[in-house]
Amino acid sequence: MAADAGAPGTVRPGGRTAQVRAAVLRAAGDLLSESGFAGLDLADVARRADVGRTTVYRRWGTPTGLVADLLRDMAEQSLPRTETGSLRGDLRENALLVQRTLSDPRQGPLFRAVIAAAACDRRTSAALHRFYATRIAEWAPCVVAAVARGEAPEGTDPAEVIRAVSAPLYYRMLASGDPVDEAAAVRAAEAAAAAARAGAYADPTGEGQDRP
Amino acid sequence: MAADAGAPGTVRPGGRTAQVRAAVLRAAGDLLSESGFAGLDLADVARRADVGRTTVYRRWGTPTGLVADLLRDMAEQSLPRTETGSLRGDLRENALLVQRTLSDPRQGPLFRAVIAAAACDRRTSAALHRFYATRIAEWAPCVVAAVARGEAPEGTDPAEVIRAVSAPLYYRMLASGDPVDEAAAVRAAEAAAAAARAGAYADPTGEGQDRP
Repeated sequence: MAADAGAPGTVRPGGRTAQVRAAVLRAAGDLLSESGFAGLDLADVARRADVGRTTVYRRWGTPTGLVADLLRDMAEQSLPRTETGSLRGDLRENALLVQRTLSDPRQGPLFRAVIAAAACDRRTSAALHRFYATRIAEWAPCVVAAVARGEAPEGTDPAEVIRAVSAPLYYRMLASGDPVDEAAAVRAAEAAAAAARAGAYADPTGEGQDRP
Repeated sequence: MAADAGAPGTVRPGGRTAQVRAAVLRAAGDLLSESGFAGLDLADVARRADVGRTTVYRRWGTPTGLVADLLRDMAEQSLPRTETGSLRGDLRENALLVQRTLSDPRQGPLFRAVIAAAACDRRTSAALHRFYATRIAEWAPCVVAAVARGEAPEGTDPAEVIRAVSAPLYYRMLASGDPVDEAAAVRAAEAAAAAARAGAYADPTGEGQDRP
């Protein structure tokens, strides 16, 4: 697990410590996905990961600490962005990646569980925000490139365009309950690209656009 | 409370049953806002509402049942849409209403608590979806009117435009942690209006748009 290199407490990539971490985070993710944050018991995690209980308690301390480390690992492990050569194409790839994640039978419930936990806990919430900051920073350069190609006006806020792609998919999953399907993903990407082209993300106030 | 008329179990508007319901739902909302779904204890609700415990248990049964009724009441009580004469204006009013709700010191935590509960419970989730369906249906006619005025193409999906206005605000509150401020609301409205104008909500697949 090369992505573990440099993570706190890691001795060396692929070493015993990294293997323990990988097994524990896998078990934690499984439990979160199956029974939500309330089902995340450190003793259960240790049993499932086949790791000593003391190790888990000493290294992660609490379910909250474990979720924070899981989110760090998810950010490290998550896929690099795809470059298609156009803003529409890039945003579509981004939307489909988010859609596949949220509709995955393991990842979907896992995200729901972590977001629910974050709504009630400050530390989990901070870890979740760091996760999204990493993902947004990974994809933002596609908007910078689009501006350079003249596909969106100067001053377009790259992070805001990337957030706009994910937002309708999360809203469907967490609020309205509409399906998080490919059509929704494609539409989210098309809408964000169209709004970016029209300059909707170029001005923080949304003023100064000469439209009726 | 005229908006209670016709709700199940209501004798008559302003009657004893309606007063009890109003007091209980107020107390339930306060508790949810203060300590989340985990803090929603029916005995506490009865005490705060100054209503007999038996009444609360008999009428609402469980915290989940109480949240479902609270969401029904919130949908009934929520404000009618504003008509400004333009799609941009209408969507901006909608966005600012959502933004004020989510950033309100009582309503914001209440929504977070209910959404967190819905992520773990099917019945709460169904009640939440009904709440959003009501709100989306309330605002969708502004898109129908905009299509009639030629501000968006024929075939534009009104519900999808309304969802697009709320989505970035919920994404900020629940996922990325970015501020849910007026600038975000105005931008969400501008982006939805621009994307609607460009036809991004007119075709379920997002295909068939002759853009680069």
